[in-house]
Amino acid sequence: MGNISKQEKKRINSLAVKKYRDKERLFVVEGEKSVSEFLASSFKVRKIYCTCEYGFPVQHPDITQITSSEMQQISNLKTASTVLALVETPSVEIDALPNNELLLALDDIQDPGNLGTIIRLADWFGINYIVCSLFTADAYGPKTVQATMGSLTRIKVVYTDLYAFLKSANEKNLIYGTFLEGENIYTAELSGNGIAVMGNEGKGISPEIAGLVSRKLSIPAFVNNAAESLNVATATAIICSEFRRRIYQ
Amino acid sequence: MGNISKQEKKRINSLAVKKYRDKERLFVVEGEKSVSEFLASSFKVRKIYCTCEYGFPVQHPDITQITSSEMQQISNLKTASTVLALVETPSVEIDALPNNELLLALDDIQDPGNLGTIIRLADWFGINYIVCSLFTADAYGPKTVQATMGSLTRIKVVYTDLYAFLKSANEKNLIYGTFLEGENIYTAELSGNGIAVMGNEGKGISPEIAGLVSRKLSIPAFVNNAAESLNVATATAIICSEFRRRIYQ
Repeated sequence: MGNISKQEKKRINSLAVKKYRDKERLFVVEGEKSVSEFLASSFKVRKIYCTCEYGFPVQHPDITQITSSEMQQISNLKTASTVLALVETPSVEIDALPNNELLLALDDIQDPGNLGTIIRLADWFGINYIVCSLFTADAYGPKTVQATMGSLTRIKVVYTDLYAFLKSANEKNLIYGTFLEGENIYTAELSGNGIAVMGNEGKGISPEIAGLVSRKLSIPAFVNNAAESLNVATATAIICSEFRRRIYQ
Repeated sequence: MGNISKQEKKRINSLAVKKYRDKERLFVVEGEKSVSEFLASSFKVRKIYCTCEYGFPVQHPDITQITSSEMQQISNLKTASTVLALVETPSVEIDALPNNELLLALDDIQDPGNLGTIIRLADWFGINYIVCSLFTADAYGPKTVQATMGSLTRIKVVYTDLYAFLKSANEKNLIYGTFLEGENIYTAELSGNGIAVMGNEGKGISPEIAGLVSRKLSIPAFVNNAAESLNVATATAIICSEFRRRIYQ
């Protein structure tokens, strides 16, 4: 007989779906490194499931040891790891957003892997806040959490009406956006604060949001007849890198 | 009765596996944009399957119209597109590699999505050749082909013993590698040619390959206590961007 009920398994599996994550205000974190990062963070880890191979001892009031086959049944990974945690979804207040640092804004980023990679990039480049449109992928979905590699513990992700947010922000902040045509990002003047908007994978930045962009930037392609566009996560990498490079000039 | 036999379906599905791709010297390309790019390229498109929704007419001696449900059965996508092509795997000769341009070398990149994104980046940044270690993911696997968004038609991907290749190349070429510690990439002198080595997702550049690197580079993190590393595709984006940025200085 297993250590985890059918009902419990069903509940954990349901957290792969946003509707149930929102209802329970819980999400799933898997893997030793990620779970230990969440345990060391301000996030509240509600419950931990682990197998007997789980390497290091953890102080937590609610740990249940389960079998590897049970773990596979509750895991979102092809090959489950030794530990899975249920973590409380934080509330991030839009009012708390700072005016004097660089923020990222995401206009309907759809792919969970792209979103996770962007959160990891933000962490590397010291960008503390990501403001997402309401149609952006959910930061607490299993693929996104996995792709952040623990960076989600350090980055505040806010979901809001992006148009309204940028409209109210653009008096005090420069709003940068990347387009196929714009100022060459390598030679453009970039400040250490402001809001950099990244657009949807297929459609780019939507026309309404584009209307609020005060500085249009472009990553020049090296040759004509090349790829039509860059993947949004790699474009974000180049943009964040360019903003931060200016420190070393 | 369908227009495609059980055996044919089985054969197409088998091409998701490298062993069968190697045996047949064929790979699968899906989606209108990608298929049209392959048709316009020097690749040989052996056969095309399309549904009645396939938007534009194509001149090809071997087109079979199938139903949407047959298409879903042979597709590697969650939601099949209207067209799927069988394309001949090219032979790329290692001897043809140029000495006077920038190349990328991949030391055991495992994730097909990362490889595809890197191929797309190479296309954007005018890097014509990617030299892969024998344990690098296969450029002709379905996920990789999908992630290249057609860039695979323009980039030559060579698989070889990477250590032997770099050993013979490093008399004539600077070999760059990215490490957690190295010269700050933003201020390092970078040339328009040479070989930039990117390491495995988990382990980075292997010790033997590291021994052949003549210039160790590092992407500085903006803050301490940040993400431990960057995703290899985003790191490649930043590195390619830095090499090409120097043109605009």
